[in-house]
Amino acid sequence: MTAELIAVGTELLLGNIANTDAQYLSEKLSALGITVHHHTVVGDNPQRLEAALETARKRADIIITTGGLGPTYDDLTKQTICKTFGRKLELHADILEEIRSWFRNRLGKEMPENNVQQALLPENCTVFDNPVGTAPGCAFEEGGVHVLMLPGPPFECQYMFEHRGIQYLEKLTDGVIVSHEIKIFGMGESSVEEALREPMTRLSNPTLAPYAKLNECMVRATAKASSAEEAEEMLRPLVGQVCETLGDVVYGVDVDSLEAVVSTLLRQKGLTLSAAESCTGGLIAKRITDLPGASEVFRGGVVSYTNGVKAGVLGVPQALLDEFGAVSEPVARAMAEHCRNICGSDLAVSVTGVAGPDPDDRGNETGIVYIALSTGGETVCQKLSCGKGRGRDRVRTAAASHAFDLLRRWLSGLPYQP
Amino acid sequence: MTAELIAVGTELLLGNIANTDAQYLSEKLSALGITVHHHTVVGDNPQRLEAALETARKRADIIITTGGLGPTYDDLTKQTICKTFGRKLELHADILEEIRSWFRNRLGKEMPENNVQQALLPENCTVFDNPVGTAPGCAFEEGGVHVLMLPGPPFECQYMFEHRGIQYLEKLTDGVIVSHEIKIFGMGESSVEEALREPMTRLSNPTLAPYAKLNECMVRATAKASSAEEAEEMLRPLVGQVCETLGDVVYGVDVDSLEAVVSTLLRQKGLTLSAAESCTGGLIAKRITDLPGASEVFRGGVVSYTNGVKAGVLGVPQALLDEFGAVSEPVARAMAEHCRNICGSDLAVSVTGVAGPDPDDRGNETGIVYIALSTGGETVCQKLSCGKGRGRDRVRTAAASHAFDLLRRWLSGLPYQP
Repeated sequence: MTAELIAVGTELLLGNIANTDAQYLSEKLSALGITVHHHTVVGDNPQRLEAALETARKRADIIITTGGLGPTYDDLTKQTICKTFGRKLELHADILEEIRSWFRNRLGKEMPENNVQQALLPENCTVFDNPVGTAPGCAFEEGGVHVLMLPGPPFECQYMFEHRGIQYLEKLTDGVIVSHEIKIFGMGESSVEEALREPMTRLSNPTLAPYAKLNECMVRATAKASSAEEAEEMLRPLVGQVCETLGDVVYGVDVDSLEAVVSTLLRQKGLTLSAAESCTGGLIAKRITDLPGASEVFRGGVVSYTNGVKAGVLGVPQALLDEFGAVSEPVARAMAEHCRNICGSDLAVSVTGVAGPDPDDRGNETGIVYIALSTGGETVCQKLSCGKGRGRDRVRTAAASHAFDLLRRWLSGLPYQP
Repeated sequence: MTAELIAVGTELLLGNIANTDAQYLSEKLSALGITVHHHTVVGDNPQRLEAALETARKRADIIITTGGLGPTYDDLTKQTICKTFGRKLELHADILEEIRSWFRNRLGKEMPENNVQQALLPENCTVFDNPVGTAPGCAFEEGGVHVLMLPGPPFECQYMFEHRGIQYLEKLTDGVIVSHEIKIFGMGESSVEEALREPMTRLSNPTLAPYAKLNECMVRATAKASSAEEAEEMLRPLVGQVCETLGDVVYGVDVDSLEAVVSTLLRQKGLTLSAAESCTGGLIAKRITDLPGASEVFRGGVVSYTNGVKAGVLGVPQALLDEFGAVSEPVARAMAEHCRNICGSDLAVSVTGVAGPDPDDRGNETGIVYIALSTGGETVCQKLSCGKGRGRDRVRTAAASHAFDLLRRWLSGLPYQP
């Protein structure tokens, strides 16, 4: 089956926001085994939306629209879809009551009367009620084409697809589709492809597909079967084989991020972490505290962006800074050790390096980074070259990811580059 | 003039990346007074790209493609465009030489032979040489439609549009288009629209248009004239009027971000900053150190995510923590004052609050945040409610922005909420 995504919203054509709904839905549809051939974006303009729908119904089995379900005069998605597909709009009294309660309970006020139009839905449709906002979505089939309407705000779109859209689409396919994501750090997409070329090209069900992400990559294994148990049965040996082939660059299966894996490992072992950051400037702390419940495993840290703070707050000896410079192994080690002591954590990680754009005053190039991990028993240190010539953002992101990977390896008893 | 953006790349249809090129180009085109009516995304598939081009040439004056200019067999944008528009591809010897040198000088190796195809360009085109990558872009006009081809990687796409595409498009419009961006923090988009409704609806040249961004908003003033001087002449009173109407919620004109404004103010006044962060967990430090040259104004800080670090590293008295709890005005004040002392900075800002998802153990709801600023002479503190019910990410981002806004106001001698 093929799908086409149509996003509706002048704010997309003005560059006000990126079409992240299309990215999210494409990834999810791909995992369901549904091929996306086109994304289209049109403004809040019924003629251009109608033309896009007419084109899409000729070439796709599934059309998913995002946006244009709000209560204002320029929210025209439902009206235009009904016109194009020859359906009437009907008032759903139960949906109207839900929207009224949402206003009362969540926003503490009465529903403005123009929100009534959000309770108008195409006749004979499957209603997607929306517990996270006011705009319900819906779906119907007409002439062999399935049309799904989802709200535009990314949080609502994702919630509605995850809890309403997937169930609708699963009924269209014979059997169920199950997929697992094998997350990789420290091996590039092309090397991963090379290592897995044989199963990737040989297999048709289950399948393997690689994806590059910023600084890391991912392999998705997908199986289609008559039941979830059967699909899992098909996937188990394949996921095992991929993990064995790639080795310890695999940091997890169906996990969110390196920092989430580190956080779980710390929690399992009852250990706490702190971080002393120079060039990453708070990014490690920011990433681990993005996770709810971070305070159980992360005590805090020091952003020692200048030598004064490295010496004055962390307590790195001034003599070390003078002799070796801030970007050096001895300073990285001292940063981690002192951070561990002053923060009272079981482990401490440190990063010092050159984020760029210019080399430092001792001639260290942009991207040179030292990462140290102090564990009480020992301190280990790595020298890395992170994203030379790719800008501050890339260097900082790569350095933080390497720090989390060093932690993951140490916590899992895996080897790490000395 | 109207434009259509066509992005080429299967990675977009797989949800591997979002189409941020379309967002960037849309915003730039809008500032040039060019209206974008459609974004289209197709995979690395010549038939579907050709169909998209045929549709676009019938409805747009300008087609801009992104992606598909690489050296591999699936990079087919140039070939497909030439076929559609009836042009030949020609080898450009000078471009080939540039690509060869790029490999030698930047990557330290000889150019692989399949990169030769990157030096093939349509006959009689305007060449956009690419100093930041290997794929040159180009533009030509055929039957009244202008076609521009840009590389897909966002950094290259942006560089090439900024330094090559804009110059090409400016020649197509009569006269020049100049715009200024008025950045706003602390007033919502709908209030901004209400305050500016009269000039927004009355004016046709220059024009005013509002844009909502995460936690802030922006008004763009655009003028079209026969010369840049004339356009500036038209914009000056309008920008002045907008700034006067909105007042001190305007944090700058044509500036990048709140943190960039704070960084400039600190540099101008020769002052340094440090940050003590609890719920923002390093985000303030991360945002200010995203800017190159941050070490001139930012000394560093402490991520005091737990009370142990607030007491042990920052030196916040345990009695204060016990009596008032971590999320309180006395603790926020002490965090800022102690941070200023231990980091040796002129100013220090602190944030302590509840990022969620759950209230803290003293019943403070998600989103309750205290922000303090210690200046040596005094310490000021604000209690804010940041993005209740909108999740950790939103609360943290809002809290960090409020901290930068407090700094901006104090550094500029503007009033701030006590």
